[in-house]
Amino acid sequence: MPPLLPNIQSPQDLKGLSVPELNQLAAEIRQAICSVVAQRSAHFASNLGVVELTLALHSVFDFSYDRLIWDVGHQSYPHKLVTGRYPQFSTIRTRGGLMGYPNPEESIYDLFMTGHAGCSISSALGLRCGDDLLRVINEAAEDEPRRHVVAVIGDGSFTSGVVFEGLNHLGELRKNITVILNDNKMAICPRVGSFGQYLDSLRMNPFYTEMKADLKQMVQNIPVVGKGIRSKFHDLKMAFKACVSGGMLFEELGIRYIGPVDGHDIRQMQKFLRMARQFKCPVLLHVLTQKGHGFTPAEEDPASYHAPNPAMVQGVTLPECETKPDHSYTALASEKIRELMERDPHVVVITAAMCQGNKLELIRKEFPDRFFDVGICESHAVVLASGMAKAGLRPVVDIYSTFLQRAFDHIFQEVSLQNLPVTLLMDRAGLVGADGPTHHGAYDLAYLRIFPNLTITAPCDEYDLNGLLELAVTHTGPVTIRYSKTQAPKITGVERQPVRLGKCEILQAGTPGGGLILATGVQAAEALEAVRQRGDRSITVVNLRFLKPLDEETLLPLIRQSAWTLTVEEGCRIGGAGSAVLEMANDAQDLHPEDWPTSPRIIRLGIPDRFIQHATRAEQLAEVGLDASGILAAIEKLSG
Amino acid sequence: MPPLLPNIQSPQDLKGLSVPELNQLAAEIRQAICSVVAQRSAHFASNLGVVELTLALHSVFDFSYDRLIWDVGHQSYPHKLVTGRYPQFSTIRTRGGLMGYPNPEESIYDLFMTGHAGCSISSALGLRCGDDLLRVINEAAEDEPRRHVVAVIGDGSFTSGVVFEGLNHLGELRKNITVILNDNKMAICPRVGSFGQYLDSLRMNPFYTEMKADLKQMVQNIPVVGKGIRSKFHDLKMAFKACVSGGMLFEELGIRYIGPVDGHDIRQMQKFLRMARQFKCPVLLHVLTQKGHGFTPAEEDPASYHAPNPAMVQGVTLPECETKPDHSYTALASEKIRELMERDPHVVVITAAMCQGNKLELIRKEFPDRFFDVGICESHAVVLASGMAKAGLRPVVDIYSTFLQRAFDHIFQEVSLQNLPVTLLMDRAGLVGADGPTHHGAYDLAYLRIFPNLTITAPCDEYDLNGLLELAVTHTGPVTIRYSKTQAPKITGVERQPVRLGKCEILQAGTPGGGLILATGVQAAEALEAVRQRGDRSITVVNLRFLKPLDEETLLPLIRQSAWTLTVEEGCRIGGAGSAVLEMANDAQDLHPEDWPTSPRIIRLGIPDRFIQHATRAEQLAEVGLDASGILAAIEKLSG
Repeated sequence: MPPLLPNIQSPQDLKGLSVPELNQLAAEIRQAICSVVAQRSAHFASNLGVVELTLALHSVFDFSYDRLIWDVGHQSYPHKLVTGRYPQFSTIRTRGGLMGYPNPEESIYDLFMTGHAGCSISSALGLRCGDDLLRVINEAAEDEPRRHVVAVIGDGSFTSGVVFEGLNHLGELRKNITVILNDNKMAICPRVGSFGQYLDSLRMNPFYTEMKADLKQMVQNIPVVGKGIRSKFHDLKMAFKACVSGGMLFEELGIRYIGPVDGHDIRQMQKFLRMARQFKCPVLLHVLTQKGHGFTPAEEDPASYHAPNPAMVQGVTLPECETKPDHSYTALASEKIRELMERDPHVVVITAAMCQGNKLELIRKEFPDRFFDVGICESHAVVLASGMAKAGLRPVVDIYSTFLQRAFDHIFQEVSLQNLPVTLLMDRAGLVGADGPTHHGAYDLAYLRIFPNLTITAPCDEYDLNGLLELAVTHTGPVTIRYSKTQAPKITGVERQPVRLGKCEILQAGTPGGGLILATGVQAAEALEAVRQRGDRSITVVNLRFLKPLDEETLLPLIRQSAWTLTVEEGCRIGGAGSAVLEMANDAQDLHPEDWPTSPRIIRLGIPDRFIQHATRAEQLAEVGLDASGILAAIEKLSG
Repeated sequence: MPPLLPNIQSPQDLKGLSVPELNQLAAEIRQAICSVVAQRSAHFASNLGVVELTLALHSVFDFSYDRLIWDVGHQSYPHKLVTGRYPQFSTIRTRGGLMGYPNPEESIYDLFMTGHAGCSISSALGLRCGDDLLRVINEAAEDEPRRHVVAVIGDGSFTSGVVFEGLNHLGELRKNITVILNDNKMAICPRVGSFGQYLDSLRMNPFYTEMKADLKQMVQNIPVVGKGIRSKFHDLKMAFKACVSGGMLFEELGIRYIGPVDGHDIRQMQKFLRMARQFKCPVLLHVLTQKGHGFTPAEEDPASYHAPNPAMVQGVTLPECETKPDHSYTALASEKIRELMERDPHVVVITAAMCQGNKLELIRKEFPDRFFDVGICESHAVVLASGMAKAGLRPVVDIYSTFLQRAFDHIFQEVSLQNLPVTLLMDRAGLVGADGPTHHGAYDLAYLRIFPNLTITAPCDEYDLNGLLELAVTHTGPVTIRYSKTQAPKITGVERQPVRLGKCEILQAGTPGGGLILATGVQAAEALEAVRQRGDRSITVVNLRFLKPLDEETLLPLIRQSAWTLTVEEGCRIGGAGSAVLEMANDAQDLHPEDWPTSPRIIRLGIPDRFIQHATRAEQLAEVGLDASGILAAIEKLSG
């Protein structure tokens, strides 16, 4: 048969296809995804798992009118392929190309740009309420078709609290939304939590259609005698009903449960989607899919194939000797945590479904009793840590910067306000490359700095990282440590100064009247590199290390005696480390104007007040001027 | 009988008391609470509801060793009265007196300072994990008693997503924690959500002990034939079990459900608490209480008696004519929203259990289809609003500033990143008086300012509030409006300038070379008052109105020509409006140094980097120098 995919210009083109044709199309979509993932790192196993589901959805609904929301959004590749983006598909996750997540600017079929888990049910309910009210406002005719709303959410996302908030409200309003629970038994790591165990129990239901009618009959025949008994039998009836439909937990919340359904059987899914569309109440359709379906290595090891190395998809095995040693901040942090855990039995680690991303597998294996993967629920992770700290442990919460945003209020109340010794590691702080706007860790310095009691740090390299981690697990209050998604630099030719609470480190001592660079994290090495390229010994380069408290004792005299001060950080310019320096210098001038005959000239480099689009990390750093050449350009401008 | 309460110096003193004596004590505790609430506004109905529960808890457990966590914490008055704080009880919620929430600095019986809902289960699990690991670390003897961990959480808090996150993890770890679900059918407003309906269904269970044995027998007698059938009958058995124990929803999550129990029957609660303590798994004890129990008017109208006017408790009815008109920002905002809803059918309102606090009752009554109370779940509220905005509505989310912190990540992803026209009203921004550190809205300006696309505003009075609300519901992107917990000032003697996007308002035009005050919200009126008191016509007073975007066109020339610039805001000094002004002036100097022969002198007034303790709002404003006399003092210092 000739290929079908190149001719699918919109989901309308799926309407005429038979199930065998749709199955052929599924195979072509898998091929297209494999081709791309063989070229560059991208989300893989999750996309292979939803190919048939995507085709079933688009062949039953018309999402140019109906509403479709992908929860985390990294599983939207098949959706992109059938909504007119096949020609651009090879550009995915590259600068100027398709985004790796839904993007309303790409297509009318993408409603929200998503990347953080758990919001799809609430978004869907908002759309449903909006569409319903607009019918009233626009005085729509009774026979004008309603827009159906469908949210697709994975079982891994289901651990996020906002899911429960959404279900609770949905169950009360009883709006006819279809929630597709895409159950592949995985978050990125294996799924955790008793809700997952509950889903597993549903899988054991042998049946769906056969026994239902019989049991219903049986229940209705139960004799009704007296009021107390009737109420009791009402309960029995409910219990039978749930047992038959298999989803009491959802039914109790007012959500009609249907399933489980084979998520790779297009015909069956079409049938159940049509059924779901008919209901007047909220429906949860439980779909069983297999992450990596159709690509054997990914089926067998879906965690490794979440976003695999291209070579893994090409089928090429890299010779052992070519494997470069991993000096990423992530790997180094994991090693150091392991060492600290060996040394101190009070140190425990909490991750929110990022065991693999944070390279914690070895720790999980060696210290199973002191390793806690809570699933995708950063709020709980932080509160759990505060409880542990209160009991006397030294919890280390290891989370991506962007996802820690979920725990903002818990960092406020449970950590800052109680002043408890919790260590917050923020991996992927700053710019993250191909994942783009939803995943940048641009805000942590600015939003953490406002809370009392926090000690806020950023290591410039491995040496700092080790020292700051040692400090964090022995300090009396909370400590945050943020680092970028990159290999940790090696700073050479400098006598390193040990990590001391609240003290910065001078990497190059310049001369009075020269320039001053105050750099944060990996940019300290970039700044040193820029200054060395210029061969300028008059410039002082400081590794800030501590953003809070700032080392006023060292920094104020340096600022005072310098021609200019350049702050550099891989974080938002608004409210970030540069602003902290501005505030410090400003307060000092107010307090001791006599020390400041002239005001200092302070210039701040950071991430500007807009969303940085997906590209490589190097391209993004160049775009915002945060690599060595960007810093060099800033120095040259300042030095005239 | 002689009074018992004065002699209760610690919970140990409860151990010898009989149930009749405990009941007498309960009456005395109610009396003590009434006495205090008759003097000043304080949490009332919730405290009356948990008197017996508190006594049962302290008479069964020893919380000097065991662990007790109060979820929201405003129901901890009886707990305070029996944990050695009876002598100071009359000072509650006053400066230097007892706090209205648990406070670890007051007592070893208070573990966490709480005020935001939903974290107690996660905190309890953290303590449990910590205590368990510490037994291993300390090589505790097998017979050393374990510390029991109890979390008390209201049904109103249960809508918060972090509760589900905690239950999901607890159910997996199967640690023996006792969760007391204090079910009074209320949040502050009547409870919402299908979970609440589920709890109501549990109340209908006639049972507990009587029918259980019979049904168990019956289930066990079901014949087992073949494997498929066995599995089916296993389901039936589970269903029966849940029907009998009544809490399938919890049982499905691995939590043992007991209840419901009468929360005003001390003997019964003692029995069930002792039972819960024996379990090796997590237990949820469902306790039915009545908000306001023992004080008839509060029983009948618990919402009004959540934190009543003292006169309501004294039994005095204020004559109608003495009732002052309410010009609070809260009341004015509600009136204006109502007007906007009348004018534009697209405007809808979302609140998170603050219908009463935000004075939205009339709107709920008049526009039931366009009013959404989602319960205590701010994350969902914001995502719901974004969905509605996407559909074409103009949602207004009306939330306290401090609680909006829960939605930080959702403001990022669902509002800022999608650039959707959602209006976020932040009531109780700034200092809130007697509620203290957990409730101040100190951070919103700083944390919102970092996100692109947001328009951030603060009205100085009613005129501004109306104008900004009109702008918000017609603007193309998201708008935030924050105001303080106070009567809106009336600015007189000034020709007001209409609200225009991104433009500030000059309230008094001073002279070049004079001072410049840039004030935010209610402090603009305070600043004007301070300048008038001083009779200084040289000072320019600006109502900033817009914190983002800042009105550079107007502000930069003013800053340039002024001897000094004083920024004033009721928000954290770190990263707030003052820092925004600093950043703006700094960037301008960098861009056009020729315009700035000398650097401007900028001084920032705001909330310092520590937690402001409970007191009256006036006392707190005076403490941090944000009232007219504080501003006057700052001016005098600057003017030399």
